[in-house]
Amino acid sequence: VSDVIPPTLAWKRGHIRVIDQRLLPGQLVFLDLATVDELCEAITTLAVRGAPALGVAGAMGIGLAALNGEPLEAAAARLLATRPTAVNLAWGVARALAAEDPVAESKRLAVEDVERNMRLGSHGAPLLPVGGRVYTHCNAGSLACVGYGTALGVIRAAHEAGREPSVWVGETRPALQGARLTAWELSRLRIPATLVTDSMAGPLMASFEVDCVVVGADRIAANGDVANKIGTYGLAVLAHHHRVPFYVAAPLSTVDFDCHDGTRIPIERRAREEVTSLGGVTTAPEGVEVDNRAFDVTPADLVSAIITEEGLARPPYSTSLADLAEAAGYLSDHD
Amino acid sequence: VSDVIPPTLAWKRGHIRVIDQRLLPGQLVFLDLATVDELCEAITTLAVRGAPALGVAGAMGIGLAALNGEPLEAAAARLLATRPTAVNLAWGVARALAAEDPVAESKRLAVEDVERNMRLGSHGAPLLPVGGRVYTHCNAGSLACVGYGTALGVIRAAHEAGREPSVWVGETRPALQGARLTAWELSRLRIPATLVTDSMAGPLMASFEVDCVVVGADRIAANGDVANKIGTYGLAVLAHHHRVPFYVAAPLSTVDFDCHDGTRIPIERRAREEVTSLGGVTTAPEGVEVDNRAFDVTPADLVSAIITEEGLARPPYSTSLADLAEAAGYLSDHD
Repeated sequence: VSDVIPPTLAWKRGHIRVIDQRLLPGQLVFLDLATVDELCEAITTLAVRGAPALGVAGAMGIGLAALNGEPLEAAAARLLATRPTAVNLAWGVARALAAEDPVAESKRLAVEDVERNMRLGSHGAPLLPVGGRVYTHCNAGSLACVGYGTALGVIRAAHEAGREPSVWVGETRPALQGARLTAWELSRLRIPATLVTDSMAGPLMASFEVDCVVVGADRIAANGDVANKIGTYGLAVLAHHHRVPFYVAAPLSTVDFDCHDGTRIPIERRAREEVTSLGGVTTAPEGVEVDNRAFDVTPADLVSAIITEEGLARPPYSTSLADLAEAAGYLSDHD
Repeated sequence: VSDVIPPTLAWKRGHIRVIDQRLLPGQLVFLDLATVDELCEAITTLAVRGAPALGVAGAMGIGLAALNGEPLEAAAARLLATRPTAVNLAWGVARALAAEDPVAESKRLAVEDVERNMRLGSHGAPLLPVGGRVYTHCNAGSLACVGYGTALGVIRAAHEAGREPSVWVGETRPALQGARLTAWELSRLRIPATLVTDSMAGPLMASFEVDCVVVGADRIAANGDVANKIGTYGLAVLAHHHRVPFYVAAPLSTVDFDCHDGTRIPIERRAREEVTSLGGVTTAPEGVEVDNRAFDVTPADLVSAIITEEGLARPPYSTSLADLAEAAGYLSDHD
């Protein structure tokens, strides 16, 4: 993996060292987290975020608890309470709890994460037309994982294969992960990118300036419904209206086979201040009501394909996702 | 008209006094503009904005030039160069140029603006179901006009008639006219409102939380295609997908009968800094490419009705708009 983007999180002398994503793109600063409480705080405040990264963070959190002699079950409960939508967090916590050595297991998951994303990227890259203009939303890049990225991993693999993609980066209000994180990653990778407000997606598609959409996912239901960053559903409707292919890139750990469809996915609501102020500047009248849902659900019938590390899932997803997971040994608990 | 929101612009002792909309919602401050250059600067920096307000501002600008003994044609050219999309600016400038006394004419237009918006509101209010939840975008309120508002005028008229509307206010990136201006107006008018990011529109419609959309317009082509703030087109596609009525509220001065369809409407592109920073805080990596189109075009077939001061226009708009304009004497130049 290229060293232009450091790992999002890694073990360093008994601490977890993470990139503090709250300070990007202005500063690349690392945080050393020594306790489960410090890790929970980093997750809640979005210093660490992104579904695959949260999976590894959950496992590392159990590792921290083990190193510090804290009760593992209590640590697990605190970690799981930080963010309700991403299923990977629960997956990583469960993997570490089931392991004999949680620290070693979390290290294994971190290595697997990058390898898996590179495989995912290689499966997805051929979907991007040569010279194609790809629209992405939020950050499903290296920073959302341990490294390489899922949606951005697909774009990166296409770039490395000489397919010369260029990228429309939706800024992704309210927390601006597109502007702050995705634009930063693409700039480091020297992949051509243009930043736009989320409202630009419609006119860009109407004028044939978008060849496909690629986004990540925070949880995928067994039927293929996709929970992802707020704004994803609107993008999917626009893509459908303009007959633009709409791809979701996510590892199989993002699929919740216990969740029949998207209506069962809990949607996190976040603080009003994310919408009413930015960097200390207040942009809305005092006391205004705010509805700030962090995610939305895109129904499976708006998704052209789901790109996983085991290959592409195509509709109907209830069978294609289960087949891929079974081939990868993911569903062994359900046998 | 209620005095809770002062007039957006008015003559004061030979100056034009305007609300400085750049400072809202934090401070209600007035600017006194003494020259055409000062007015042009106020328009360019969005201290004064909104299609109907720009119409009156254009007329007042010609009035200022007349008072200051400046050549009227040169003043007109400078005013017209400030904002290319809103056709009302050209309309107001032309009205003042054709008048014997430009100052008196601009005063007449200011009074007419408020009366027209109240009539427009009374035609539109019955479209809102009792207790209905209305989604609006950008600011088509009192601040976009001399007073009362167009899209917000419809909501205000429904409120005053006891229909008890509540409003979803899309924040409207990049300049946040929804968060800064519309939320402020609705709070002053004590109309229930909830602020959301632009990405929330899709999930709100999917969960049946939106009964209709009402927006303003910067220019309407003769066939009913509507240029309005970036994000309007995406909203219209979402409304169509969810079978939610999509209404455009605009005075007939917004209709450009010389413009056959939306492809002929010039779309203003604005500075990258509107997207990459807010209140001095930089939120994107240095040097990133930005595409910042200020407006988009919604095709007529996505518009359920156009609400004007002369009544509702329904499809096909090429005839219904022309009929309304003829009834109002607007098309006399074309006879």
